[in-house]
Amino acid sequence: MEEEKRETQNQPAEEEDQIVNPWEVAAKDGGKIDYDKLIDKFGCQRLDQTLIHRVHRLTGRPPHVFLRRGVFFAHRDFNEILDSYEKGKKFYLYTGRGPSSEALHLGHLVPFMFTKYLQDVFRVPLVIQLTDDEKCMWKNLTVEESQRLARENAKDIIACGFDITRTFIFSDFDYVGGAFYKNMVKVAKCVTLNKVQGIFGFSGEDHIGKISFPPVQAVPSFPSSFPHLFSGKDDLRCLIPCAIDQDPYFRMTRDAAPRIGYHKPSLIESTFFPALQGETGKMSASDPNSAIYVTDSAKVIKSKINKYAFSGGQDSVEKHRQLGANLEVDISVKYLNFFLEDDAELEHIKKEYAAGRMLTGEVKGRLGSVLSEIVERHRAARASVTDEVVDAFMAARPLPNMFD
Amino acid sequence: MEEEKRETQNQPAEEEDQIVNPWEVAAKDGGKIDYDKLIDKFGCQRLDQTLIHRVHRLTGRPPHVFLRRGVFFAHRDFNEILDSYEKGKKFYLYTGRGPSSEALHLGHLVPFMFTKYLQDVFRVPLVIQLTDDEKCMWKNLTVEESQRLARENAKDIIACGFDITRTFIFSDFDYVGGAFYKNMVKVAKCVTLNKVQGIFGFSGEDHIGKISFPPVQAVPSFPSSFPHLFSGKDDLRCLIPCAIDQDPYFRMTRDAAPRIGYHKPSLIESTFFPALQGETGKMSASDPNSAIYVTDSAKVIKSKINKYAFSGGQDSVEKHRQLGANLEVDISVKYLNFFLEDDAELEHIKKEYAAGRMLTGEVKGRLGSVLSEIVERHRAARASVTDEVVDAFMAARPLPNMFD
Repeated sequence: MEEEKRETQNQPAEEEDQIVNPWEVAAKDGGKIDYDKLIDKFGCQRLDQTLIHRVHRLTGRPPHVFLRRGVFFAHRDFNEILDSYEKGKKFYLYTGRGPSSEALHLGHLVPFMFTKYLQDVFRVPLVIQLTDDEKCMWKNLTVEESQRLARENAKDIIACGFDITRTFIFSDFDYVGGAFYKNMVKVAKCVTLNKVQGIFGFSGEDHIGKISFPPVQAVPSFPSSFPHLFSGKDDLRCLIPCAIDQDPYFRMTRDAAPRIGYHKPSLIESTFFPALQGETGKMSASDPNSAIYVTDSAKVIKSKINKYAFSGGQDSVEKHRQLGANLEVDISVKYLNFFLEDDAELEHIKKEYAAGRMLTGEVKGRLGSVLSEIVERHRAARASVTDEVVDAFMAARPLPNMFD
Repeated sequence: MEEEKRETQNQPAEEEDQIVNPWEVAAKDGGKIDYDKLIDKFGCQRLDQTLIHRVHRLTGRPPHVFLRRGVFFAHRDFNEILDSYEKGKKFYLYTGRGPSSEALHLGHLVPFMFTKYLQDVFRVPLVIQLTDDEKCMWKNLTVEESQRLARENAKDIIACGFDITRTFIFSDFDYVGGAFYKNMVKVAKCVTLNKVQGIFGFSGEDHIGKISFPPVQAVPSFPSSFPHLFSGKDDLRCLIPCAIDQDPYFRMTRDAAPRIGYHKPSLIESTFFPALQGETGKMSASDPNSAIYVTDSAKVIKSKINKYAFSGGQDSVEKHRQLGANLEVDISVKYLNFFLEDDAELEHIKKEYAAGRMLTGEVKGRLGSVLSEIVERHRAARASVTDEVVDAFMAARPLPNMFD
């Protein structure tokens, strides 16, 4: 049997000069993450214009800004999902979050915003896994605290606008068991200790909870893990939108899938949302000044951007007018690339800023208003998410109209 | 914190000349298992006459033949269970079985017969774990086949006479989840990969299901794993009757327990039921001629005993009359020691046989009738265990009168 690319090369991710795994993202010596290298290393495929055009054609809707601008830049077998979709076969979406902090930052919202778009344009069901068990084990949180954070995070996720008639959100502590646990055991049987150490870099000093966890994140890829949703639909394909640091879990999953009679899940993978200080890693929940939180006020957002957003502009106005900004390292431009929807305006800003006709302060000002608006909209949406709404999304229930 | 004896000495069990772990029992070079050495190696305590007298006094009932005759010969903190019991505090029993074969042999019944006695005389609740997940992973059975075997084995277990008002039988595939899974995660956080490799001898080629499993067998030791039974009774102590090959699981459990706020479970541990061919290991389900099955007819039992039961008698009748039998190696005497309840008759047989006045054939004849009677009684009891009865024992339900 053909093995998933990179699956059997048991070298820890740390061996290479940039570190990208589910728990750490760091570029080489303060440089940028080399995404081309990552595609090669992980063995996934580049998401090219042909595929994006195909999404446009099949959905009849303009591709999401994250697709148009290369935020989601890599995939595994996304074309197969589109092939079946074209033949009238639907699929389901699976994404998730490890609930380790109270408030989400903008980077956390990226996969959810994109997943909502996918749900809307393809009209498909979605399962969202909150890995409270993982965070309890990795962050040394109590079970109770992990569960509380999972519910808090669920409110932020729901605030992204998911359709309750097509969305099931679950926490592992609530949901592991039954068909889900049976699939965990099936996957675990396919993965040797050597392999999991090679993929994730676990050592002998790591506790066995870590070694037991990968199957938990693997099995939402299989429809039979959700009998209340997909009973009798074992053939349903799964598409996973996620940041590329989650790829190791799904390489493992894709390697196991055919051995236990399931489709390999398809993936569509994003770059990381950079820290304000520069594009050397992803935003970190542990340094509050590296990120814009969905709980930050407009004033705080403005101040964080002015103070911390790494600028590609020149030291003096004179020099800037003469040389222009280096867009490659400018964080405000990067952030606008994620969140300013108007392509024409973004092009205009980039052109003017690069030419030195626009100053860093002006770009930061525009970014401040764009982000404040997003965060304000999010805050309003979240305020309407009551505990009852959370309970409703998290009830293990059938979703009779999820494909309509 | 004081660590459980032997817990931190990461040497695989295989290093010593006799091998005793949950998956293999083998004496040194065809000799006998050295139980004294095992007690030292594992760091458990010998079950002495004082404790047996105490059980007699506290229960007002004669100690079970397995206690009187040293079948249950070792323990961990059994005295603490009796201390609390004496002060009016009840406990619960936990035992289990890995359902890897259709029919049980007599060795399989030993812990259940003894557990039934403990339940009867102490009037306490009992949980019985069927580790269908374990057998699915170790024996490469399908999930469905493991579950089927679990239900079949449950019928044999129920046939031992457990009180349905105090007994909850569960299969891992059915029951893992919720409070049980939360405890699994708590235990897993306390056990490093190094430690579990030291205790169980797992290697890099083993699949991660094996490494994930020990917490599953650990957590029935904690009352909070059974909220439908023991809600609000986190202080309830647990006593585990088992064969001593299961000790590694509970050393690990006892090491983790105080770190997650639970009592260490107490243990009462048996020798192995020897194979017909001699006392070099325990009966093996894989060699049908090494064991008497609960499905064997009286004729088959008689024939197996005559053909295979290792004899301590002499080669010729003349020599036997002169030298007598070597009781130390005679399997018929060993078996009678387990199953002939009448102490006086057993003493008589041993005395006459050792003196050469009784021949092997006579002893085997008596053993045949004893075992046939037990097996016949078992068969009749099992025949009355319908699927509805199994469902009733396996329903996760409160047991309101379990301590009465």
